[in-house]
Amino acid sequence: MLKTALVWNERYMWHNTGNAAGIMPAGFDVQPLQHVENPETKRRIKNLLDASKLTNKLHLIEDRVASDAEILKVHTPRYLNQLVELNKTGGDAGPFTPMSVNSLDIARLAAGGVMELTSAVVKRQVKNGYALVRPPGHHAVADGGMGFCLLNNAAISAHHALDNLNLKKIAFVDWDVHHGNGAESIFYEDPRVLTISVHQERCFPPDTGDNQDIGSGEGRGFNLNIPLPAGTGLGGYLACFERVVLPALYKFSPDLIIVPSGFDAGIYDPLGRQMMTSSGYRRLTHMLLKAADELCDGRLVMCHEGGYNPSTVPYHGLAVLEALSGEDSGIADPFTEIHDSMMGHELNSHQDSYIRAAELVLDNIVSLWQKHD
Amino acid sequence: MLKTALVWNERYMWHNTGNAAGIMPAGFDVQPLQHVENPETKRRIKNLLDASKLTNKLHLIEDRVASDAEILKVHTPRYLNQLVELNKTGGDAGPFTPMSVNSLDIARLAAGGVMELTSAVVKRQVKNGYALVRPPGHHAVADGGMGFCLLNNAAISAHHALDNLNLKKIAFVDWDVHHGNGAESIFYEDPRVLTISVHQERCFPPDTGDNQDIGSGEGRGFNLNIPLPAGTGLGGYLACFERVVLPALYKFSPDLIIVPSGFDAGIYDPLGRQMMTSSGYRRLTHMLLKAADELCDGRLVMCHEGGYNPSTVPYHGLAVLEALSGEDSGIADPFTEIHDSMMGHELNSHQDSYIRAAELVLDNIVSLWQKHD
Amino acid sequence: MLKTALVWNERYMWHNTGNAAGIMPAGFDVQPLQHVENPETKRRIKNLLDASKLTNKLHLIEDRVASDAEILKVHTPRYLNQLVELNKTGGDAGPFTPMSVNSLDIARLAAGGVMELTSAVVKRQVKNGYALVRPPGHHAVADGGMGFCLLNNAAISAHHALDNLNLKKIAFVDWDVHHGNGAESIFYEDPRVLTISVHQERCFPPDTGDNQDIGSGEGRGFNLNIPLPAGTGLGGYLACFERVVLPALYKFSPDLIIVPSGFDAGIYDPLGRQMMTSSGYRRLTHMLLKAADELCDGRLVMCHEGGYNPSTVPYHGLAVLEALSGEDSGIADPFTEIHDSMMGHELNSHQDSYIRAAELVLDNIVSLWQKHD
Amino acid sequence: MLKTALVWNERYMWHNTGNAAGIMPAGFDVQPLQHVENPETKRRIKNLLDASKLTNKLHLIEDRVASDAEILKVHTPRYLNQLVELNKTGGDAGPFTPMSVNSLDIARLAAGGVMELTSAVVKRQVKNGYALVRPPGHHAVADGGMGFCLLNNAAISAHHALDNLNLKKIAFVDWDVHHGNGAESIFYEDPRVLTISVHQERCFPPDTGDNQDIGSGEGRGFNLNIPLPAGTGLGGYLACFERVVLPALYKFSPDLIIVPSGFDAGIYDPLGRQMMTSSGYRRLTHMLLKAADELCDGRLVMCHEGGYNPSTVPYHGLAVLEALSGEDSGIADPFTEIHDSMMGHELNSHQDSYIRAAELVLDNIVSLWQKHD
Ligand SMILES: [Zn+2]
Ligand SMILES: [Zn+2]
Ligand SMILES: [Zn+2]
Ligand SMILES: [Zn+2]
Repeated sequence: MLKTALVWNERYMWHNTGNAAGIMPAGFDVQPLQHVENPETKRRIKNLLDASKLTNKLHLIEDRVASDAEILKVHTPRYLNQLVELNKTGGDAGPFTPMSVNSLDIARLAAGGVMELTSAVVKRQVKNGYALVRPPGHHAVADGGMGFCLLNNAAISAHHALDNLNLKKIAFVDWDVHHGNGAESIFYEDPRVLTISVHQERCFPPDTGDNQDIGSGEGRGFNLNIPLPAGTGLGGYLACFERVVLPALYKFSPDLIIVPSGFDAGIYDPLGRQMMTSSGYRRLTHMLLKAADELCDGRLVMCHEGGYNPSTVPYHGLAVLEALSGEDSGIADPFTEIHDSMMGHELNSHQDSYIRAAELVLDNIVSLWQKHD
Repeated sequence: MLKTALVWNERYMWHNTGNAAGIMPAGFDVQPLQHVENPETKRRIKNLLDASKLTNKLHLIEDRVASDAEILKVHTPRYLNQLVELNKTGGDAGPFTPMSVNSLDIARLAAGGVMELTSAVVKRQVKNGYALVRPPGHHAVADGGMGFCLLNNAAISAHHALDNLNLKKIAFVDWDVHHGNGAESIFYEDPRVLTISVHQERCFPPDTGDNQDIGSGEGRGFNLNIPLPAGTGLGGYLACFERVVLPALYKFSPDLIIVPSGFDAGIYDPLGRQMMTSSGYRRLTHMLLKAADELCDGRLVMCHEGGYNPSTVPYHGLAVLEALSGEDSGIADPFTEIHDSMMGHELNSHQDSYIRAAELVLDNIVSLWQKHD
Repeated sequence: MLKTALVWNERYMWHNTGNAAGIMPAGFDVQPLQHVENPETKRRIKNLLDASKLTNKLHLIEDRVASDAEILKVHTPRYLNQLVELNKTGGDAGPFTPMSVNSLDIARLAAGGVMELTSAVVKRQVKNGYALVRPPGHHAVADGGMGFCLLNNAAISAHHALDNLNLKKIAFVDWDVHHGNGAESIFYEDPRVLTISVHQERCFPPDTGDNQDIGSGEGRGFNLNIPLPAGTGLGGYLACFERVVLPALYKFSPDLIIVPSGFDAGIYDPLGRQMMTSSGYRRLTHMLLKAADELCDGRLVMCHEGGYNPSTVPYHGLAVLEALSGEDSGIADPFTEIHDSMMGHELNSHQDSYIRAAELVLDNIVSLWQKHD
Repeated sequence: MLKTALVWNERYMWHNTGNAAGIMPAGFDVQPLQHVENPETKRRIKNLLDASKLTNKLHLIEDRVASDAEILKVHTPRYLNQLVELNKTGGDAGPFTPMSVNSLDIARLAAGGVMELTSAVVKRQVKNGYALVRPPGHHAVADGGMGFCLLNNAAISAHHALDNLNLKKIAFVDWDVHHGNGAESIFYEDPRVLTISVHQERCFPPDTGDNQDIGSGEGRGFNLNIPLPAGTGLGGYLACFERVVLPALYKFSPDLIIVPSGFDAGIYDPLGRQMMTSSGYRRLTHMLLKAADELCDGRLVMCHEGGYNPSTVPYHGLAVLEALSGEDSGIADPFTEIHDSMMGHELNSHQDSYIRAAELVLDNIVSLWQKHD
């Protein structure tokens, strides 16, 4: 029986974002602390997988270096050159995107890891998989880094699947709490990739993520933004998935589903204001697994993006890996009781209005797809 | 001219909550990390006051040890005995309330610090003041610690003001994102203390904070809970203060206002889901200052409670200290632009329904006050 | 061809020594920091093995829980009971030996891991091996913990080898900078185990490690302490090994060599004052490998003890694992140049006098062995 | 009565050395950790002074910005320009000398702080003083940073004293465990400044610190290096001070003594291999106080350099501040018992040979001074 794959390389943890104060560069009026995108949340996911021995039940996939050619499918030569230079000195690869020496070397391994996973999933060598990579990628656009992201790992892998693995249609379901602006912009005119992003409204970037942004040119109708208001819990997420995301997937019928997976919609995340829990992530994963099974022979690739609470993120990640693999780790999320006791898990009328708006957008873009056929 | 006072003791930072994972005790299935209630947020407030030289413009108040008799005004002998024992060994003083060796010694200094500040404010030796103490206190009840809180510093100080400083009426305005359950329960039957708590609905504790809990016996009508839904920003807070908190204060007309001040309603806090910013805290402070000026000769005491994002809390604290003192620190919150760019600052209809409910409660309890007169 | 084995369990890293200040419990006059025996040095050895892919060339051995019966071969029922109780609450298992909840559970895995490695080495299933376990063990005595050590992993494994694996004679070569007092005392009257400890004179414990302590009763002559003065570098270590340790091994002719391996004789260690470097550890390992090859079919087991500089210890560990396995990790110790530039690597006359004293002790005990035959 | 002065600015702690691994820049084969020259050791000295209330008995001196002109008395225009540029971007100011944005701004405050202290001491506004500044300075040479040091704070202050405060002769006694190469080279041809450095032989820099380097030109005879071998304790330090340092001071008869004060000769320091304790530092301070009293009306200025063990350095610093001020902090070094129990505090023959060599050098240079008169 096929196993769930895991991509991991210790060196992902060595990408060094420095002594910032959260997201803010340290400076004369900003006392150094640590950068919010440090290795700890991701390392602790791996540690929890290891401690529970769930790792032993997964298929470990070796990463590789993403080549210039592969990167240039998505990014501009100007930006790649900039990264090559910054790789020698460190510096800023874009807004809120600190690099250190060797960060590009590590980012190439991350992008290569997601590509290897994508190949293995597409070729049915593994059941599905999670790439626990770093640095993240979903904010990175063609011509620059953004929001802690250097290379757009998921977009590079989607190009790899389209160009080298003979796939025709790919759907992104980005559930990171922030807008998946990178894939949106990279595939904005490309009808082969339906980019869906479920995100907290204008959490980051400050000026993208509107549900009126539906793609353009050939890609018109192939971008679906579903902003949710701050304070949304599983009730809102379930409604959003049941009423918008899954219908979109079923109508689009992709050959592969890629999930840029951030856990920063978690109820204790410092950067997001949403209220997802481990059992919530588990339920969303089951919904996506079912869709993948029914639509594309189970082809589901998750790649790690955000998630900034090192105490809770590991349990969110464990729940997702348990759901993907169908294995029981034997470890329960100790935060469940306290998280479940908080109010706000039910869909409320304010959130419902956001989902109704997204339903209308979906109707609209589906009508555009029909023209496309 | 009177100055704003600051209470600080380096030893507040030495209360040791250990290697938990956030709020969760470390254990066989919980990898140690650090406790979320560690010194860093508070220390960095002090550091920022120092770096900006605002400290030099404040009146520093020396703390002292709170005596057994003072503590027993609020807490039970059983609980004090428990604390005395745990002070020798460390252990749990209640749910989510780790103690280390010497934690009671430090908690006595915190309670003593708030009492000294209260005395100085009541006697008009200082204009107003902020006690940057630790461990926090607002969840601690008569017979136990709770939620990182050992001694209820604010409640002990209110008793001190009533019993030793000849005050007749005190109002609490607890703006920590969690419910101010400690003062509520301690003064639940006491009409001399109007305990107002503005908090995220059922964020913690899991079973208190309802707006139907209005006090009992002689204290019936003297407890006002204003739960707000997750995702509330300054719009909701301003509406809450303008429509409920301030009217309550003006009608109650206290001799002193005590603010258990947590910054965990901040927009990047990991435990709360609210969206307050530094300028929001500044505005609320100005509202309370005006009320204090008009009602009780400016007598306003703030004592520190929660707030768990070490990168942003210092700027929230700086804004409050600037507002209290009327001094300009010369340092602007660098997070302002990104925080202002996020959606959710406006009052929405869902939040409005919560405030309307609180208005009805206020009408109800005010009618009870009249009977009381 | 047989591989070198590695014992590792993520949970070894979850033994929690708390917020001490180095070795000192935090308290009213001691600001909390972190305990010097925290996971970081050990985790970073593993991280470096992983990053260099050396891990992939090693044989990973699964640990197991050490049973009460196995522990009681070395420790007293009283002490085991104490550990069982402290496992529920945390507390002190002896001088400088903090335990947290579940520490015994983890210590059982560490002891079990070293036993499994010992079995595999003795049975020639693997070439040799390193148990990267935690908590450490070499200070633990029969009736108590000491110096960060709970269970004496090496001593328990030696008993396991004598009792269950049919070995007749075992030699310990403890190169941790501190005295291997635990094995010394446990086997002080046991001629089957020659306990050799090379250590900085009276570094810890404060009252053991004299070269006059040579065992008693049946064990008289089977304990060899080689204290070295502070400031000793590789010159002194080579002289010590060539002139004393190796001659002792060759004359004793053990069936198995166990090395309680601390890297706190490293040149940047905070607790020791010695000057060992990665290439120094490599050379000592080669010497022991040669002795093991010539004496006992290569049977060499190393188990991790101290080492407290998280920047340098990983490279010391990598050098030892490269030497044990004969594999090249491709990563060079970046500290080599700066460490080699320091003065003090050569044997000096003061150090030589210590080694001459040890030679005399060796002559003496060897003469006792002959009586023993 | 005059008080002991303390220079401190919270912003000294905000100089950001980044996520190195100890002294080593992080990189592809070096996992990020923290830089060994981070704020913690220094901050914890201040914290301990504050917690013990010793701070309240000291005279706090406000620092100021060192001007270009003041810096250029010691450093080259080329290096200052380089620092001005690196202040905008961060980068390397020399070997092992990471800078972050704003590091020069902070370094100017450090140099300005030591100058202000020097002025206050020379003018007898205070009894003596300690500048707890950061970044350190004693390795910085005229044309570059080195060893974590940007501006040579002590050398700049010595120039300030010579040029603006009318002093004729200044003696440096650098007791940092590393060679005081910066002042040596800056004043190598200047007979007005006797630069004495007591250091571990070739600990850092790798190629300076020989006792044969005695100055040149006009300055020939006015540099005195006293290397001590690794493993030297208070016995060696007392011998060195009594037999060489103090005789040199008494013969030179300075108008001011400046002590570049590192605590990295401490017994638990990771970078040094010496064995100084808090009581040892206290005794050396008393010796220097006596010399200053008898030679130059008590004029003694200490400025902070290295010291890298955050658990022990605070107690070393407290001991020195107690000695300088004659005040009792009420806090005893909790490490005293364990440190005193270690062997190696006595002068041994190997160390004695180093001191004898230094005595010969002293005889030689004193003979050169006489020619100078
Ligand atoms: Zn995100
Ligand atoms: Zn709170
Ligand atoms: Zn050791
Ligand atoms: Zn130094």
